[in-house]
Amino acid sequence: MHRFFVAAPGISGAAVTISGRDAEHIRALRIRRGEIFTVCDGAGADYVCRMTEVGRGSASAEILEKRASAGEPGVRCTVYAAFSKGDRPEAVVRKSVELGAAAVSLFISARCVARPDAAAQARRAERLRIVAEEAAKQSGRGIIPEVSISGSFEEAVRDALRTELALFFYEEERELALRQALGGTPAPKTVSIITGPEGGFEPGEAELAASAGCRVVSLGPRILRCDTAPAAALTCVMMYYGQFERVV
Amino acid sequence: MHRFFVAAPGISGAAVTISGRDAEHIRALRIRRGEIFTVCDGAGADYVCRMTEVGRGSASAEILEKRASAGEPGVRCTVYAAFSKGDRPEAVVRKSVELGAAAVSLFISARCVARPDAAAQARRAERLRIVAEEAAKQSGRGIIPEVSISGSFEEAVRDALRTELALFFYEEERELALRQALGGTPAPKTVSIITGPEGGFEPGEAELAASAGCRVVSLGPRILRCDTAPAAALTCVMMYYGQFERVV
Repeated sequence: MHRFFVAAPGISGAAVTISGRDAEHIRALRIRRGEIFTVCDGAGADYVCRMTEVGRGSASAEILEKRASAGEPGVRCTVYAAFSKGDRPEAVVRKSVELGAAAVSLFISARCVARPDAAAQARRAERLRIVAEEAAKQSGRGIIPEVSISGSFEEAVRDALRTELALFFYEEERELALRQALGGTPAPKTVSIITGPEGGFEPGEAELAASAGCRVVSLGPRILRCDTAPAAALTCVMMYYGQFERVV
Repeated sequence: MHRFFVAAPGISGAAVTISGRDAEHIRALRIRRGEIFTVCDGAGADYVCRMTEVGRGSASAEILEKRASAGEPGVRCTVYAAFSKGDRPEAVVRKSVELGAAAVSLFISARCVARPDAAAQARRAERLRIVAEEAAKQSGRGIIPEVSISGSFEEAVRDALRTELALFFYEEERELALRQALGGTPAPKTVSIITGPEGGFEPGEAELAASAGCRVVSLGPRILRCDTAPAAALTCVMMYYGQFERVV
């Protein structure tokens, strides 16, 4: 079933109005009058709708049923990933959204190869927000996860520490395995995952993260690429907290 | 530390000889006499070596220490993934190898969009084997996982059933969550993961897999892309069986 996000003002009573890019998309998909599709308000509610009118730049539908979005995990997990080369940031955002991240934030750390300036960061963030929206539609999320390029490593660590559990994934960590860090306490409601760039974190960065209050953890004996690590870490966290179970 | 795979005949007593593509690679990387690097025999043993001679088309080194490869998981997990469009098969192979798959096998199922013929499959398999070797080197594996394009869906299911636990990931499954399928029995030594193409499996394919003996399982309420699902499923299995713990 096709899925669109429509901000609350477009949803009123028993009807929904779709405009802008989504209305164009509806025309491109040739969704016709009478067809059933899903509209999500981006705040966790899904509306099953029947199309009533498809026009230029706008479409209308009647709401048949309202229900909670099934795609939202019970743990709010934010991914902080170091900015990487080429189109890897797009892959990191897309997969994080599919796998249930609440938000994705990219930052520049000491060994980042790609170091966009503020203007390039703003342009890139816009592009990454479109990737996030597409992935949210495709994977059936109930929200469009926020995407930001936060700038510095220090800011990322500071923001991550606002969650109940901030996990800092460090290749050189030899002691603390992820399962130990996740276990032993009641499941947190908010978690942060911090992963490094192509060349990994510098020892000083790991020390800074640890002394600021992050749990510095290992993802095991295999060295994961910088675009594999955030998805793997997020999958592990979601698996550990039972977020791959289907809520029927 | 640089890492190369050398078949057993190249390793004899206290010395190792590297030839072919790896010898060219050593020249390209400008690894010089006296430098320390790792040679893996592809059968689970690592040799810490010091370079003694770099020539055209061949290099020699002395073996300083032999030790078990730390990168090999205790569970042999084979990934069976439906053949997908564009360069997604390369991504599936690369990530599966990084995440610890013992082997990767691609097959053609009913809804596959890309359907290479036998000759194209053979060429592609060759390319995918190079991807697997590179990923094995980069991630510190102790073997180069085998890559094959097995042909039909039926063959993939039949091969998967040779392992102790064959998991068939099906988007429409509503009952069995992955953790249920993994739990309750002693950890298996061999596991298979079967994932579908862009449009998912057909209901008849899921029925065939179930009646043949696969456990048909859900990966939860979010719909994962066909190149995200195998990596996520493999990560979940490895996490469940403690294979992200570092063996010090």
